Amino acid sequence: MQEHSARTGLQLRSLVKSNGDLELSLTRVPTPTPGPNEVLVRIDAAPINPSDLGLLLGGADWNSAKASGSRSNPIVTAPMTPKVLQAMAARVDIPMPVGNEGAGVVIEAGKSDAAQALLGKTVAVLGGAMYSQFRRLSVNQCLALPPGATAADGASSFVNPLTALGMVGTMQREGHKALVHTAAASNLGQMLNRLCLKDQVGLVNIVRKSEQEELLKAAGAVHVCRTDSPTFMQDLTEALATTGATLGFDAIGGGPLAGQILTCMEAAANRNAKVYSRYGSTTYKQVYLYGSLDMNPTVLNRNYGMTWGLGGWLLTPYIEKIGPTAFQALKQRVAAELKTTFASHYSQEISLAEALQLEIIAAYAKRSTGQKYLVTPNKGL
Amino acid sequence: MQEHSARTGLQLRSLVKSNGDLELSLTRVPTPTPGPNEVLVRIDAAPINPSDLGLLLGGADWNSAKASGSRSNPIVTAPMTPKVLQAMAARVDIPMPVGNEGAGVVIEAGKSDAAQALLGKTVAVLGGAMYSQFRRLSVNQCLALPPGATAADGASSFVNPLTALGMVGTMQREGHKALVHTAAASNLGQMLNRLCLKDQVGLVNIVRKSEQEELLKAAGAVHVCRTDSPTFMQDLTEALATTGATLGFDAIGGGPLAGQILTCMEAAANRNAKVYSRYGSTTYKQVYLYGSLDMNPTVLNRNYGMTWGLGGWLLTPYIEKIGPTAFQALKQRVAAELKTTFASHYSQEISLAEALQLEIIAAYAKRSTGQKYLVTPNKGL
Repeated sequence: MQEHSARTGLQLRSLVKSNGDLELSLTRVPTPTPGPNEVLVRIDAAPINPSDLGLLLGGADWNSAKASGSRSNPIVTAPMTPKVLQAMAARVDIPMPVGNEGAGVVIEAGKSDAAQALLGKTVAVLGGAMYSQFRRLSVNQCLALPPGATAADGASSFVNPLTALGMVGTMQREGHKALVHTAAASNLGQMLNRLCLKDQVGLVNIVRKSEQEELLKAAGAVHVCRTDSPTFMQDLTEALATTGATLGFDAIGGGPLAGQILTCMEAAANRNAKVYSRYGSTTYKQVYLYGSLDMNPTVLNRNYGMTWGLGGWLLTPYIEKIGPTAFQALKQRVAAELKTTFASHYSQEISLAEALQLEIIAAYAKRSTGQKYLVTPNKGL
Repeated sequence: MQEHSARTGLQLRSLVKSNGDLELSLTRVPTPTPGPNEVLVRIDAAPINPSDLGLLLGGADWNSAKASGSRSNPIVTAPMTPKVLQAMAARVDIPMPVGNEGAGVVIEAGKSDAAQALLGKTVAVLGGAMYSQFRRLSVNQCLALPPGATAADGASSFVNPLTALGMVGTMQREGHKALVHTAAASNLGQMLNRLCLKDQVGLVNIVRKSEQEELLKAAGAVHVCRTDSPTFMQDLTEALATTGATLGFDAIGGGPLAGQILTCMEAAANRNAKVYSRYGSTTYKQVYLYGSLDMNPTVLNRNYGMTWGLGGWLLTPYIEKIGPTAFQALKQRVAAELKTTFASHYSQEISLAEALQLEIIAAYAKRSTGQKYLVTPNKGL
């Protein structure tokens, strides 16, 4: 176990300033002492997920970003448009730590048996501010990893695995029999594909490009529809009719795609319609938007009758809805299948300081398929 | 009681032809004999509701309509664009009777006690094909009107009253405390305003013009917001914050309005927010589209976090959801408040033949506020 005489550690912070600049920096913060049911975790690995980028990069213009400070204590500044600044009003002048999840070793533990049981263990943790050297967390924010699993193996144990499980769980709870997913070649999409194959759940994968189609097909995906194909709408209708998917999860958000999914679901539902109904089919069709890769407005043509819903979907309210027992079962499943169904792969490992280098920011800001960054807060200092 | 030696009556029909014409005509159809639990109703009054116009007029170009046939047996034809014809594919060459609701006198009754009890009574009826001289209906499609109520008084006992009650009921069942309603100066909107005032439910009325605002204010409406005002978004946010309305019913459908309502609901919810949340407020915000007065695409800017829903809303599934006992209670309430809360007023009474005159079609197709047509199938033949 390390000694922390100074009891401080570095933490990455994102700060929206009232002058319209977004500033990223590393701050030295006190390392807290765990309470009875808490532990202190040395964070060894934390992924940069799409869901971290909104808070981290704040919609600023990173093409115009400037670096200052020193190599070990860098500061990066990027300008925001007045409109973006207005949308960020609630966080102006409040330094925000970043990083939803990570993994590391429990180096101190509170008095409770549950806390003591974790001492020395490698755990996956959920709770924000993971781009930090040390984090105090309550025991129930920790998931002990199976023997042999490294922090890198477990760093993405929560966001993507629980989102994939939450999508399938939502499908079951809301009475649908199969799923459609957009941006399906993402890390999350590949994981959802493995989960649906394992659990024999019908899945229609929507991707943009043929490379993404090949990647998913190579991983065993049965239905892959490409938005760049001239027969996209027919292909999607066919796949929806075959699987019976009436629930969609869309990471794109903007543009026509969510509405196109509803249109094709309605066409699939009407294949067996025997009488004309001016209100469309009675099959309930639902699309949830869980991301906003396209920031443009969502455009709905409403040519799918009246029996449909569109809404936002987030993991946290889903977990609250299912309750602690069901949540615990999901976490245990993730731990059990950490190196198979829920495995994550990283293309780059970066230090906290490297996470603030302009060319590296430009790279992870792209959210490219196959490019996944892992922050290692206790390496390369 | 009238004699019907021929046992036939006239029925208005709407027919989409495969050549792209929509044809309206009057057809003589056999008058059926009621079964044990059925009655034969002489339809004396049936309103033309916005919800009838889709089936009746079928999206054809009524500016290019042509009249033929005789004065007592008119035929009207209007062309459809290929796109509209395609959308109507399921009803091509199938003559469709029209008219969701009406009222009249029970002139024959089946053997059951329930049917016999209605003989000679004036009843409101729901069940389609009401632009007909005679309709055979099951007893549970009839609502006996209170003594002294005429067929004209009871002709609109179902669609608007049950829709208004359904909106308030949905609000209660889905855990909201107040409502927002668009196209709020419509017959339905005025009725909803009376219902909410009586039941002390907070209601935010959205209208387009100052005349509509004055009409609702004169009827006691507390919150009226005008989309033509430069302060519309501020006014709406203020009214939503005051009432706590987090549920909207939108008759417009197309354009930005549904999204603007969600935006203002979110702004109202965030007034008391103490911490920044990148996912927006945790207040659930829902808008149901129940009409499509604007056929343009719905445009959603999604600047209201992730805790929201948009969907279609229809009366029939709502009634199925609440079950027969609750439905019966709603019908009894409508009968009891037929001349107060649920009163309807008509600007014109027209015969079946007049309903097929070009200048009259042009008038009711406009759906103008204050212009409401009542078809009287057994008058002016």
